[in-house]
Amino acid sequence: MTRQELISQIRQKESFLCVGLDPDIKKIPAHLLREPSPLYSFCKAIVDATAPYAVAYKPNLAFFEAEGTEGLEAFGLTVEYIRLNYPDILIIADAKRGDIGNTSALYARSFFNHFGVDAVTVAPYMGIDSVNPFLGHEGKWVVLLALTSNPGSADFQMLRLADGKRLFEQVLETSKSWAGPDEMMYVVGATRGELIGDVRKIVPKNFLLVPGVGAQGGSLEDVCRYGMTKDCGLLVNSSRGIIYASSDTDFAESAATEARKLRDAMSAQLQSYRK
Amino acid sequence: MTRQELISQIRQKESFLCVGLDPDIKKIPAHLLREPSPLYSFCKAIVDATAPYAVAYKPNLAFFEAEGTEGLEAFGLTVEYIRLNYPDILIIADAKRGDIGNTSALYARSFFNHFGVDAVTVAPYMGIDSVNPFLGHEGKWVVLLALTSNPGSADFQMLRLADGKRLFEQVLETSKSWAGPDEMMYVVGATRGELIGDVRKIVPKNFLLVPGVGAQGGSLEDVCRYGMTKDCGLLVNSSRGIIYASSDTDFAESAATEARKLRDAMSAQLQSYRK
Repeated sequence: MTRQELISQIRQKESFLCVGLDPDIKKIPAHLLREPSPLYSFCKAIVDATAPYAVAYKPNLAFFEAEGTEGLEAFGLTVEYIRLNYPDILIIADAKRGDIGNTSALYARSFFNHFGVDAVTVAPYMGIDSVNPFLGHEGKWVVLLALTSNPGSADFQMLRLADGKRLFEQVLETSKSWAGPDEMMYVVGATRGELIGDVRKIVPKNFLLVPGVGAQGGSLEDVCRYGMTKDCGLLVNSSRGIIYASSDTDFAESAATEARKLRDAMSAQLQSYRK
Repeated sequence: MTRQELISQIRQKESFLCVGLDPDIKKIPAHLLREPSPLYSFCKAIVDATAPYAVAYKPNLAFFEAEGTEGLEAFGLTVEYIRLNYPDILIIADAKRGDIGNTSALYARSFFNHFGVDAVTVAPYMGIDSVNPFLGHEGKWVVLLALTSNPGSADFQMLRLADGKRLFEQVLETSKSWAGPDEMMYVVGATRGELIGDVRKIVPKNFLLVPGVGAQGGSLEDVCRYGMTKDCGLLVNSSRGIIYASSDTDFAESAATEARKLRDAMSAQLQSYRK
């Protein structure tokens, strides 16, 4: 999916919602455990319920891999189902991969060619040759970890370098010479809004994938105040708040309700910034 | 596997060789493509041929995942085969994972419980709560990326911090408060021997998993000069140089020959440092 296609989706749906698909076998409604592939049945129902409000889905590989080969099969089925039924929705494999060049190339082949997702989250620690193999695939995206939303982000990402920059700022500076805003997005946590402003100074145009709104305490208003651009430039992710809104047979309807609420709040933000 | 068990294996075999299992479907001998699981058949043959000389195997997940669910199945079979037939050999899943706490916990469950490996390589960028879930499993290990052997390691790992340390040194400093040398190893590339000496100043006892000897240009002598401790403290990895020593039907014998050569060189090093 190209940048322009993503921007038009956002305009059409008045939404920049990314729904995180984190199907935990211990948390999904009990009646689904009778299905041949409980993880897939869960994701499929969530997708059908939330597709009118979402512009992206972000399945996290850990939740699928926790169930071994069956889980990976459920991942493949989920991606295929979204691709066939909702071809305009971006699919981000949240895999946080990154290895030496020839090995990263295999991960890129796996995610882009074998599974057919649009984007992969990549960890920056190993530098340019670990990220490069994910670049240059037409219509495909790298979503590079810059500033994550977890407490441990303070350990290294916030470290001050000799030249005064913090490590996450250097990751942005260095990596923006590797690829432009047509194929590179960044993960930037929502937990401290003003940091999103610092990110925007370095990458004024790139889309930011923002976790941490809701369950982790970030506010949508702050994210938009500091991060929104004229093309929106944001994908705000919600996982638990939507997919586990109910643990009963009404889980899909409850997910739809939560997704719609977020879409409505996003629509209001888009309108207020359009003025 | 405990640290003491690993040390006795090294003494018994006079070897600190880790064989990297990177089974690329495009590189394995053509006659194996007729097997039901070519990747598994390849790994099984390599393992049987090299087990007398190796104290660890390091299957890299990228090579298995590139073949989707079938590849992951081959990974599971390979781990099971080693576990059953060579229970004294350490199995390191080279996965370079790392995610927010609850998600890393799922990766830990997948690798330690579902697949049953002894160790997982983990990326440090997301900090303590991304690494913690891999710790505290009896007999299991985290192998944390500190200084990798690829050119891109210069981009961030070598950056100078405000206090004068380089980032990889800070990763060692910070993470050694998370776990001791009984459950934490570090990936330290061999391409510049004196850097291994800098690593040793910070983590004098931890085992180092050292890639980059051979194909990538590092020297075994340098690695030992700068990195060997009284408990050895090293696992030196070789992948391509062993597993692709021949691409013909004699691939397993050729792998054995190369592994034996490395074991002999390692044995000489162990003897010279014992004096």
